[in-house]
Amino acid sequence: MADDKALTPRDDDFSAWYNEVVQRAELADHSPVRGSMVIRPWGYGIWERMQRALDDMFKATGHENAYFPLLIPMSFIEREKEHVEGFKPELAVVTHAGGKELEEPLVIRPTSETIIYSMYAKWVQSYRDLPVLMNQWANVMRWELRTRLFLRTSEFLWQEGHTAHATDAEAQEETLRMLDVYRTFMEEWIAMPVVTGLKSDSEKFAGAVRTYTCEAMMQDRRALQAGTSHNLGQNFSKQFGLTFQSEEGREEYAWNTSWGVSTRLVGGMVMTHGDDTGIVVPPRLAPAQVVVVPIYRKEEEREGVVAKAHLLRDQLVDRGVRVRVDDRDHLNPGAKFYEWERKGVPFRLEIGPRDLAKEQVVLVKRVTTEGEDRKAFLPEGQAVAELPDRLEAFQSQLLDVARARRETHSHRGVESLDELKEILDGPGGFVYTGWSGDPAVEERVKDETKATLRCIPDPDFRSEKAPTRCIGGGESKMEVMWAKAY
Amino acid sequence: MADDKALTPRDDDFSAWYNEVVQRAELADHSPVRGSMVIRPWGYGIWERMQRALDDMFKATGHENAYFPLLIPMSFIEREKEHVEGFKPELAVVTHAGGKELEEPLVIRPTSETIIYSMYAKWVQSYRDLPVLMNQWANVMRWELRTRLFLRTSEFLWQEGHTAHATDAEAQEETLRMLDVYRTFMEEWIAMPVVTGLKSDSEKFAGAVRTYTCEAMMQDRRALQAGTSHNLGQNFSKQFGLTFQSEEGREEYAWNTSWGVSTRLVGGMVMTHGDDTGIVVPPRLAPAQVVVVPIYRKEEEREGVVAKAHLLRDQLVDRGVRVRVDDRDHLNPGAKFYEWERKGVPFRLEIGPRDLAKEQVVLVKRVTTEGEDRKAFLPEGQAVAELPDRLEAFQSQLLDVARARRETHSHRGVESLDELKEILDGPGGFVYTGWSGDPAVEERVKDETKATLRCIPDPDFRSEKAPTRCIGGGESKMEVMWAKAY
Repeated sequence: MADDKALTPRDDDFSAWYNEVVQRAELADHSPVRGSMVIRPWGYGIWERMQRALDDMFKATGHENAYFPLLIPMSFIEREKEHVEGFKPELAVVTHAGGKELEEPLVIRPTSETIIYSMYAKWVQSYRDLPVLMNQWANVMRWELRTRLFLRTSEFLWQEGHTAHATDAEAQEETLRMLDVYRTFMEEWIAMPVVTGLKSDSEKFAGAVRTYTCEAMMQDRRALQAGTSHNLGQNFSKQFGLTFQSEEGREEYAWNTSWGVSTRLVGGMVMTHGDDTGIVVPPRLAPAQVVVVPIYRKEEEREGVVAKAHLLRDQLVDRGVRVRVDDRDHLNPGAKFYEWERKGVPFRLEIGPRDLAKEQVVLVKRVTTEGEDRKAFLPEGQAVAELPDRLEAFQSQLLDVARARRETHSHRGVESLDELKEILDGPGGFVYTGWSGDPAVEERVKDETKATLRCIPDPDFRSEKAPTRCIGGGESKMEVMWAKAY
Repeated sequence: MADDKALTPRDDDFSAWYNEVVQRAELADHSPVRGSMVIRPWGYGIWERMQRALDDMFKATGHENAYFPLLIPMSFIEREKEHVEGFKPELAVVTHAGGKELEEPLVIRPTSETIIYSMYAKWVQSYRDLPVLMNQWANVMRWELRTRLFLRTSEFLWQEGHTAHATDAEAQEETLRMLDVYRTFMEEWIAMPVVTGLKSDSEKFAGAVRTYTCEAMMQDRRALQAGTSHNLGQNFSKQFGLTFQSEEGREEYAWNTSWGVSTRLVGGMVMTHGDDTGIVVPPRLAPAQVVVVPIYRKEEEREGVVAKAHLLRDQLVDRGVRVRVDDRDHLNPGAKFYEWERKGVPFRLEIGPRDLAKEQVVLVKRVTTEGEDRKAFLPEGQAVAELPDRLEAFQSQLLDVARARRETHSHRGVESLDELKEILDGPGGFVYTGWSGDPAVEERVKDETKATLRCIPDPDFRSEKAPTRCIGGGESKMEVMWAKAY
């Protein structure tokens, strides 16, 4: 069985490791439909917890969920010039339905600005109807030939927020508010620190005025664009007649924002925390935070340890911990340990006949930092009482480790293209340099290094000393961050 | 504004009433894409609560969520003979993607048996891998020319459970378990009583061995098929090679079930409880169970009543009640009352300057039974303390009223086709008769009455005295229920 083989070590081939671990942790699988994946229960359980957390944050910031059609008339997509240029090559097109050829082809939504703002135009009359703050959880389709589970698939699941405002200032405030929601979510739930900032014009969303991004560093030092928030200005409202009567009685175009994150985040979680044993799921996202494995050799031992396992489960559930008891008879304990480690469950509780007699348990932590013991022999009551705090500590530890790794591989004060290239071809990481703002420089760096301008970092992430030289020579107007990216 | 006009009364034109009320309660709207609807936040909030409740019930019965591709190869759909006959006329077909014509057309899933069982075939090897108990929340597409919001749209949202078992008996048990979950959910959450039973062969799911159904009676006495649970036997496992090695070491085909409910349930809720004022949302499903309306004429009155409204909101939220304060300044109280009644919020709390002085509130119930007062003047504390119980009582009352209505319009002991026709052309309702089991009789009744055989009712719903005569003449072999249906 493939499952008994060790994973390709990350250092040997990170990409092979990723492909193997996603499938062997049963997060997802390839489907018979090219480019489409199947999200298996363990992966979907993680996504569900991401959804729940984000949804709560969206609602706390005043948004409501709605649902808009999957199919969009081709003519809608074509209306916003930059939008169609960006998305047309990736469209999947429905030409026939109900046994007939359609008069106008319909595309499967690659994103929903066009259909959503056409509806807002119908609903919004006055400034009193603003702001409109909606979100939808949906599947979208962007045809891809080279796909990777979670990271790049033709169909993916996401949320897309779409808002309409009476002023540019309000729209900008919303754009940044949701960027901050994403950053907070990624740090607090995925334990994945991100650099936030503005995209350059060449990297922004097709149809946006400004795109803000969350850039996370994976263990191979590549950047993952983990979420984006767009200020759309009046680009779409003008195309779809989304106007309102202002307080002063004037007819004005509304100001829009849109923002989204997707199942790609599951891939980000894997590449941030996984190790050569398997994935590691942050406790807040783990469908099971603790697995209890009863250990027995003889049938007469079985009943006692299994009963104790269920008792411990109940006690932990009462404390709000998500627990599974693995009492499958056809697998030996080693096979169970291996499976749950591969699936990244934060803690394992082992309970054998001798533990039973001593009223103790063996608590095993999925990952440790240097010098930390992996196993703890604890009195039952203590283990139960301490697990909620230990889970929180585990969550913080993951974030600390990821943040330290990112800092180690962040290179600041780089002034020459040669140096930039050397870093990117060698250790890799996030490289901060000055930039004149000239797109030709951006293009040249991209050609020579295969890295892209990930963002113009927000103040929190800028170097203490602002760069003075542009990486392409001459004066710098702003600091930018470069990395090879997914 | 259309919104200020009274609704068409249900008795004048139930169908017109439905179309109006769904849009004016802001549950849903038509979209620019023929046959596709937009679910607006108020409607989606109700659907979200339905999802949450069902999802909890699915998980409590051992199911896990997963996600399978939207697009299915045409050849998959064509593999199960009855399945393709049932679904082919309704398919939406993707022929082009990524700028090229596809080698094989892909269809947008009308349901996912084919793609899901092809994956199970990959994952299941041994009896130890069974049962597989999965569910997915997804959008599906069945091309419709005559559409109605929620009831019949080309795209709709639903859940589809798909299970695989080692034995026929286990699959049958699962089929009935999920039917019971549906029945319980519909009664306890939607306050919509249903008759459960078996579909005749002509009405069963394309590809099923047996289909069980939940049939609800709408206020126009038509039946709404609200959910179905299918025993698929080995029909799909044989087509997709879903085999397993049994405990005895034999290679065997697995036994499948599938079961689904959709956003159609929102339409069922509307047609079960709505009145000529608007929709009525059962408290357990209501995004807002109580709306607090502060009442003031002068600016100096405003601050006090608005502050009190928020205080009451907080006190109710502490008791687990979902509350909105409607403190919009540009609408008068009457307009607010009207809007929230139209949207079916169970209770309204009014608080004006005189109430403030007397520390009382006016509590207004959305619907009352005969002899019940609509308004109650209550001390603030009492209103807050009693609201959770009053909401539960409101929920029960809705179910009682709906059940009584169904009983009033259930006709039993009908023996002749003339009598059946007279009932269906007149008052309408659910009509119970004997049946020989002959499909020709079923066809004849359908032709002459426009009613269909809704189900062979489960024991709970059968007449005390079993019918002896078949409605088409001759001996009855079973009791069946007829109705005109959505």
